[in-house]
Amino acid sequence: MNTKIEEIEAVLQKFYQLNQIPSHLADATTYSLMAGGKRIRPILFLNMLEAFGLQLSEAHFEVAATIEMIHTGSLIHDDLPAMDNDDYRRGKLTNHKKFDEATAILAGDALFLDPYYLLSNVALPAEIVVLLVKELAFASGSNGMVAGQILDMDGEGKSLQLAQIEAIHRLKTGRMLTFPFVASGLIAGKSVQEIEQLRKIGQKLGLAFQVRDDILDVTATFEEMGKTPGKDLLEEKSTYVAFLGLEGAKNQLSQLMSEVKSELSGLTNINLDYIYPFIEKLEL
Amino acid sequence: MNTKIEEIEAVLQKFYQLNQIPSHLADATTYSLMAGGKRIRPILFLNMLEAFGLQLSEAHFEVAATIEMIHTGSLIHDDLPAMDNDDYRRGKLTNHKKFDEATAILAGDALFLDPYYLLSNVALPAEIVVLLVKELAFASGSNGMVAGQILDMDGEGKSLQLAQIEAIHRLKTGRMLTFPFVASGLIAGKSVQEIEQLRKIGQKLGLAFQVRDDILDVTATFEEMGKTPGKDLLEEKSTYVAFLGLEGAKNQLSQLMSEVKSELSGLTNINLDYIYPFIEKLEL
Repeated sequence: MNTKIEEIEAVLQKFYQLNQIPSHLADATTYSLMAGGKRIRPILFLNMLEAFGLQLSEAHFEVAATIEMIHTGSLIHDDLPAMDNDDYRRGKLTNHKKFDEATAILAGDALFLDPYYLLSNVALPAEIVVLLVKELAFASGSNGMVAGQILDMDGEGKSLQLAQIEAIHRLKTGRMLTFPFVASGLIAGKSVQEIEQLRKIGQKLGLAFQVRDDILDVTATFEEMGKTPGKDLLEEKSTYVAFLGLEGAKNQLSQLMSEVKSELSGLTNINLDYIYPFIEKLEL
Repeated sequence: MNTKIEEIEAVLQKFYQLNQIPSHLADATTYSLMAGGKRIRPILFLNMLEAFGLQLSEAHFEVAATIEMIHTGSLIHDDLPAMDNDDYRRGKLTNHKKFDEATAILAGDALFLDPYYLLSNVALPAEIVVLLVKELAFASGSNGMVAGQILDMDGEGKSLQLAQIEAIHRLKTGRMLTFPFVASGLIAGKSVQEIEQLRKIGQKLGLAFQVRDDILDVTATFEEMGKTPGKDLLEEKSTYVAFLGLEGAKNQLSQLMSEVKSELSGLTNINLDYIYPFIEKLEL
């Protein structure tokens, strides 16, 4: 039996092996899609579906793959010389170093547009698909990830308040980590009230993630991170560690993680065995 | 009464005036969205709806706006230094010259993701919205525009066959010009057979457009084009003019345009008065 990661990767690879996609584009998108991502967002989504008692189907793996496509597209563009100018990502050359800048721009563009094609073809009721499209676009575009990226960029070299840092991360990292929770609730037919509760849980986990990332930036080695550590510090980015200190950030992470678990346990008809172990792996 | 262009622009401006969008991002997207585009694709779509006997509604103008968002996003990325490296577009500074490269990358990204948010909220039946999402993503991503851009880039400086040039343009320009025809047919409830006929007409008009663009590249002035003419020739791009000569390209354009009109007249329940005059304006 295939693992969830294998199933997600099979959907991603199949998409770019379709005949009509030029090989240069398929190679570039597939290179970054298969560059060893931990698939945290799609697996969160799949585990939540299982926690809600659903048997996973092809449609669910396809929805899972769309999250990873957009996430990967954003990493490719983030790494570009005009953005973070990173040469390595997950221990491998970044897309524009492996190919070239023009290819990396277009590969990212494809990874923003293609998931909507995949999503429009999933075997789920049209009403649910429309809501998934809405939530994915909300999470990724000017209401979410891209907005967070521009605020993050605008904040570089400036001294920000903690509330400002949180506002940035709520958009930049939080929205795409919220989607798996909201999407699983929509597919499982949860009430509007529970879906808003899922949204809050996702936002909190998103915040925890950013705190964790900031901690790892100062504590991890190149091998552990797969990219150059200490970059945020060098670039004087406003991180949680810069603001709260390393111990303060670690306490904040523990606090957020325990709130996430407690709020999950308050949902109806949820089997926490499917989600707690995965969330606990994300603790330090 | 507002003109169609004013209505489309009102939808675009309203979208980026929503509270939660950071002003830097809203300024950058709005700058290019309002940079004097001729709105050919959205107006084709609206005129086709009218030709099919529909009364235009807010939902139709919103769908029209999504086409323009993706088109504009592609222009912003096309102009980047790593791509065509253009300083002017429609007589105004390109996005990365007006702002900076990072902003232009993110503005383009937003314009690829946001239309799906807009589309997911239009007041049309969910089954139709899903089909519109599918067709828009097909037209723009790895099955369409982005694929054409990468093939175009790969072909630069190479001597291509006419069939190869056509294959590039069918994807790069053709798919996004086909969407207005297919989308209008879907909304008007046309048969599968007529929708495939609409797709063929759109592809043909897309080809005509590219021939026209290649002709204008050698015949128009900076003022007429709003950008530096003769660039294709300088860059030894494989254009229709390079292949067929100027007169040959002009003949080809006339031929394609008359085929488009003739095929439109073969559709059922169509009032050609709503579409012929607009198409005729696109002739030279």
